[in-house]
Amino acid sequence: MDEYLLKQMHTEAKTIFRESLRPVNPYGAVKNFVRVKNSQLILGKDGEEQTTLDLKQFDRISLVGGGKATAPMALAMEELLGERVRTGMINVKYGFTEKLGVTRTVEASHPLPDENGVKGTAAIMNFLAKANDKDLIISLISGGGSALLCQPAQGITLGEKQTLTGMLLDCGASIDEINAVRKHISAAKGGQMARAAFPATVVNLMLSDVVGDKMDVIASGPFVPDSSTFEDALGILKKYALKDVPKSIVRRLEEGAAGKTPDTPKAGDPVFLYVSNIIVGSNILALEAAEKKARELGYDTLILSSLIEGETRDVARVHCAILREICRSGRPTPKPACIISGGETTVTIRGDGLGGRNQEFCLSSAVEIAGLPEKIVVLSGGTDGNDGPTDAAGAVVDPYTVERGRKAGLSAVDFLDNNDAYHFLEKTEDLLMTGPTNTNVMDVRLLLVR
Amino acid sequence: MDEYLLKQMHTEAKTIFRESLRPVNPYGAVKNFVRVKNSQLILGKDGEEQTTLDLKQFDRISLVGGGKATAPMALAMEELLGERVRTGMINVKYGFTEKLGVTRTVEASHPLPDENGVKGTAAIMNFLAKANDKDLIISLISGGGSALLCQPAQGITLGEKQTLTGMLLDCGASIDEINAVRKHISAAKGGQMARAAFPATVVNLMLSDVVGDKMDVIASGPFVPDSSTFEDALGILKKYALKDVPKSIVRRLEEGAAGKTPDTPKAGDPVFLYVSNIIVGSNILALEAAEKKARELGYDTLILSSLIEGETRDVARVHCAILREICRSGRPTPKPACIISGGETTVTIRGDGLGGRNQEFCLSSAVEIAGLPEKIVVLSGGTDGNDGPTDAAGAVVDPYTVERGRKAGLSAVDFLDNNDAYHFLEKTEDLLMTGPTNTNVMDVRLLLVR
Repeated sequence: MDEYLLKQMHTEAKTIFRESLRPVNPYGAVKNFVRVKNSQLILGKDGEEQTTLDLKQFDRISLVGGGKATAPMALAMEELLGERVRTGMINVKYGFTEKLGVTRTVEASHPLPDENGVKGTAAIMNFLAKANDKDLIISLISGGGSALLCQPAQGITLGEKQTLTGMLLDCGASIDEINAVRKHISAAKGGQMARAAFPATVVNLMLSDVVGDKMDVIASGPFVPDSSTFEDALGILKKYALKDVPKSIVRRLEEGAAGKTPDTPKAGDPVFLYVSNIIVGSNILALEAAEKKARELGYDTLILSSLIEGETRDVARVHCAILREICRSGRPTPKPACIISGGETTVTIRGDGLGGRNQEFCLSSAVEIAGLPEKIVVLSGGTDGNDGPTDAAGAVVDPYTVERGRKAGLSAVDFLDNNDAYHFLEKTEDLLMTGPTNTNVMDVRLLLVR
Repeated sequence: MDEYLLKQMHTEAKTIFRESLRPVNPYGAVKNFVRVKNSQLILGKDGEEQTTLDLKQFDRISLVGGGKATAPMALAMEELLGERVRTGMINVKYGFTEKLGVTRTVEASHPLPDENGVKGTAAIMNFLAKANDKDLIISLISGGGSALLCQPAQGITLGEKQTLTGMLLDCGASIDEINAVRKHISAAKGGQMARAAFPATVVNLMLSDVVGDKMDVIASGPFVPDSSTFEDALGILKKYALKDVPKSIVRRLEEGAAGKTPDTPKAGDPVFLYVSNIIVGSNILALEAAEKKARELGYDTLILSSLIEGETRDVARVHCAILREICRSGRPTPKPACIISGGETTVTIRGDGLGGRNQEFCLSSAVEIAGLPEKIVVLSGGTDGNDGPTDAAGAVVDPYTVERGRKAGLSAVDFLDNNDAYHFLEKTEDLLMTGPTNTNVMDVRLLLVR
């Protein structure tokens, strides 16, 4: 065992991870995608396709938005636009604030919404409703925006909305189904902010925490066309034979399905005529930055996919199968190799331990690579610096992690079976601690072989 | 939908799969690795490292072996050595015979062994025991060899051995644990054939049906050093607190652990001095042949890994995440792309339908890629032409497979939940039918994007 080299590779993995965060921090992401020059607002990265808006055509420029990372996004926009910004209102999670200029920040609850969030959203909706064709509205959206931009449709209480969401989660409805229902009992989601803002010009800047960057899913797509209908929502309640659904919700969906309430706006609806939806930060950008740094460190790189989903330990097995093939035959990439992947996996809880999907990925990988003679390091980290209900972002493991645990009296397989990766990796000193990063573009996984 | 192009891609996928089988058919695999020239036996592929044996130093050359693919391997050796082969005895599955010369074939039961197999194995062990240093023994081993080369240790009946195997499977013991126990209640497995044959020269040619080509696992490694001990075997029975283990087995293991019976031979044991273990066919060879053909057809190729294991539908999700990233960003390989992977996945049975891991992989993939606008085809096939208890080798699907099923009134998700991929894919005409291929190097998966 070349202890020195392995330690160095731990450091390299952490360095690559840190670099992956650079282009996706909310402040930097906005500044990468937005420039102001001679009263022109230029949207798009340098060297890529750009669109331009003449700021002089607008009487008023305002910021709105919601999400955990919205405050630094607003800071970037205030810096870019200076005194041109007349007003702003954003909803952020408690404590996720920044010192801002004109923009008013409402702190609210996440992941479960609260009345603060509802009040802040109502204020934004009122503002949008009054906007006219001389308004430019810059919307700032990030992960958490669905809870933080929350306005139940008329006649429905926040409690009733939450009851239904709980029922949908319990019955095993898919996330697409849950979203379809939620959009139809909300006043803001599913393009309804675009309808409120029409005919104002809207530039909606999104930091994506969604696999595949589906814009109608990020914060439930307040400015994005919705493809689901009242009939769909009603059909989902029937499909799962949900009982005791709050009456106000059933009434809302039935009236909608009967055409008495306008449905969420669909693609092609004129309310989207003056809306530009732009993703300023996403998982693939983080992976590309990781790739750049890994190359600088001398690795042959392969970005596998930014769209990885599935049960964590099976996903880990596939990743480690690739790793072992590299060791064996130099495929798909010769050594020194760095395999990079992103997305967000799930963990089926079977124990009562402490951990998160990244720590579970790493402990599963540690078992797969245990004892291999090659110099291998596996890192998995949440880009928000926060993996499950722990203070770690994830972990960094190697072929000796399992052995280090054994020497401390811990069985990796037992801890894995108890979903207790945190307490194993804490003992082996393999946790990845970053503190909050103020962003979230899901997870980054790095597999290094020398 | 470009129906013509998709149809053509189905054909291409099938062609690539068929080509992948070429270097791993048992007859061809032996001929690729073994040559006879001027009384020299040359072992190793042309252009790669080779070792040579002077056949003139031996008084007698014999064939032994066991496994489903052993008959065509024996045919190849008889052709190569001609009249030099003096005798041969192999155990094959009922019906898996070839017209051979001097080699005597015993047909026996697989996957559960029977008395025919035990008798054939005893004959081979007797023969090996009489061999001397003027003997050259060519051993031919393939998948199924563990059941077909079966000799319970003295005092243990075949029934008792099977009882214990059943108990180990039921209690959730790992395959490594089951193998450790089985080797220690057998007279032939775990290097014991090598001990019997010593001091004869042995060339053991293996067709690998094992992930990672672990030689001590292929047919339980009759000529390969064993790393497990009697103590290990006894510890495994204790670990799972197995009750009612046949007394003869407990006695055998306890006597062994007490040093009264010699343990299986370990690495470095002199009984392996004159043994050469050679893998003539394996999954990676099939993948390399697939890669060659895919390139000829104009695809950019990537061999992901030959070592893929894990729950089939999660493995499929990871593969399809890579596929979707190719569509999205041309990573990890630009279009037209062919991703190739091998190994063997598992299916946790939750329904009572008909299928196999390859069909389950394809139906899971069909759901993942349903409706994508790109030209995509996914093939997964068992190289033995036999996927689960069906007459199909696997399947070939595309983004319209789910839709074809829907038009026939079938829900892909429902059929998947019932592990009933066969009946769905039969209806959509997406089954891959090859008939028996006479080989087994696990599975080949192909993902094509144009």
